[in-house]
Amino acid sequence: MSLLVGIDLGGTAIKVALADARGEIFITESIATRSQEGPDAVIERMIGLIRRLLAQHDVPRELIGIGIGVPGLVDVPSGVTRFLPNFPTQWRDIPLARRIGDAMGCPVRLLNDVRTATLGELRFGHGREIDGVTMAFFSIGTGIGGGVVVDGRLRLGPLGAAGEIGHQTMVPGGPRCGCGNRGCLEAIASGSAIAAQGVRLVRSGLAPRLRQIVGDDDARVTTRTMMQAAPDDPPVMEAIRDAAKMIGIAAANVVTILHPSLIVLGGGVAEAGPVFVEAVADEMHRRVGMFPTADVRVERSMLGDRAGVVGAIALAMPPTMPR
Amino acid sequence: MSLLVGIDLGGTAIKVALADARGEIFITESIATRSQEGPDAVIERMIGLIRRLLAQHDVPRELIGIGIGVPGLVDVPSGVTRFLPNFPTQWRDIPLARRIGDAMGCPVRLLNDVRTATLGELRFGHGREIDGVTMAFFSIGTGIGGGVVVDGRLRLGPLGAAGEIGHQTMVPGGPRCGCGNRGCLEAIASGSAIAAQGVRLVRSGLAPRLRQIVGDDDARVTTRTMMQAAPDDPPVMEAIRDAAKMIGIAAANVVTILHPSLIVLGGGVAEAGPVFVEAVADEMHRRVGMFPTADVRVERSMLGDRAGVVGAIALAMPPTMPR
Repeated sequence: MSLLVGIDLGGTAIKVALADARGEIFITESIATRSQEGPDAVIERMIGLIRRLLAQHDVPRELIGIGIGVPGLVDVPSGVTRFLPNFPTQWRDIPLARRIGDAMGCPVRLLNDVRTATLGELRFGHGREIDGVTMAFFSIGTGIGGGVVVDGRLRLGPLGAAGEIGHQTMVPGGPRCGCGNRGCLEAIASGSAIAAQGVRLVRSGLAPRLRQIVGDDDARVTTRTMMQAAPDDPPVMEAIRDAAKMIGIAAANVVTILHPSLIVLGGGVAEAGPVFVEAVADEMHRRVGMFPTADVRVERSMLGDRAGVVGAIALAMPPTMPR
Repeated sequence: MSLLVGIDLGGTAIKVALADARGEIFITESIATRSQEGPDAVIERMIGLIRRLLAQHDVPRELIGIGIGVPGLVDVPSGVTRFLPNFPTQWRDIPLARRIGDAMGCPVRLLNDVRTATLGELRFGHGREIDGVTMAFFSIGTGIGGGVVVDGRLRLGPLGAAGEIGHQTMVPGGPRCGCGNRGCLEAIASGSAIAAQGVRLVRSGLAPRLRQIVGDDDARVTTRTMMQAAPDDPPVMEAIRDAAKMIGIAAANVVTILHPSLIVLGGGVAEAGPVFVEAVADEMHRRVGMFPTADVRVERSMLGDRAGVVGAIALAMPPTMPR
């Protein structure tokens, strides 16, 4: 039996999935990343986990490919990590693909994690409903990541860094973003940005219901608790809607630039509910003036937080295979 | 001899070029559009002009293709105009490609004029210096048009309308744009928008040198007269720089989304001088925080106002020809 391995290397957890040659996943497991132990230890534990999962299946098997999504910049052709900002030592110039490939004896492909998730949405999500699709994926969580597909092909650019649609400047003099720029969509409409507004509203006395729900504990103010409070606290509802509108404007910019047929919204914030997705879609349609957008669908991700590891399976597939 | 015809159908003039099979232009001519006479009369005059130019060359010749750039929406596969906003009757559903093709006995391809100019920049401008280039073209004149090329291929979308990078929302609650949206780049940083600032500065007494240059005549306030006044009127210089920065931010958004290797600036405003292009480039590099942009070139168009008709020649080339 031919097997594929997909790995989503995150700041807190490493998710691994085993799939058959068509990408059908039959086992997934997650372990703590413990990135503070440094690249060597993390890589050893990744290899150990793959071996353990394979050993659980005593059918004859051939590992034909491994795909890995990592949180940062990679050199795509060589499979070397360039800059993982949230990891100690930033994993500068770690030949991750070669290290794993030597240990496991199969080809390994490396990609930024959100581009990997976009590949998941393309091959196993709404993207596969449209032949040669042009689409954009917004992953709205703590930050806002993204990816862009043109004519069925994931747009990578020389560093696998194209598709960062969460780092469009929405407000030129706006708040500082983690990327160094000011006023990025991520700085205004991510889960963190929405929660920051929630905290402000609690402290200003404008969100009594939210205050009650979180029991005076700022740390419990999240998009989720804000959604709970929103029906009773109009300013909380407004903060969520304002963020959705900003994402709608950013989506409109992508539509104006690429005229895709599909926008997919994923990440924890998009899962807050259909109201959020609808508000994004409404604003997108309203903001594109240059051509009719009735043919542009806005959908919630079907894959949810599995998009990354599912995309890593898609990445693991040999390029010659039908996808 | 095999010949190509390129036509740039504008609101005031129809430009026609004749070229050999490799796209080498040997004659261009321009006549008034007189769009108020309606589609039939304009089409007849286009055909008459092509015939006259061909007749001037008494070498044996074969017309192998005609390309036409038009100012609005077209149905690309059928060559039918859908909506030319600045023309009387808006040319709704005029089968322009068939009409011209029947008269001239050769294939005719139709495209939006700024996408056509982008094709010109791709095939005969800076774009041809880079194999399989990903690039964006900003045409900064009265409005701001644009086009996007991914991996050497002009991005069209189903209506030939993708690439409208001048209609990104830069300021969500900003001034009304011709497209119906608010705060588009075009509404803030086009030649018209820059001149509007110039007029305001003259009327407010903040631009004495500009006032002198235009002799108290608002109608003479243009990017060109403003550039003349800028060394003496700091607020005029600032207005031009602010527009260049906005275009730089819009360019940064395109870079963040697509990581192209080339941004080309064309149109009358870009020709205002190297200072403008440099200001755009500086802001673009400053605004992209997610990855290094040293490999992204920002260049002034080599084709100037010929980009449209040169692009129409590129459009006229049979798809099977080497380009």
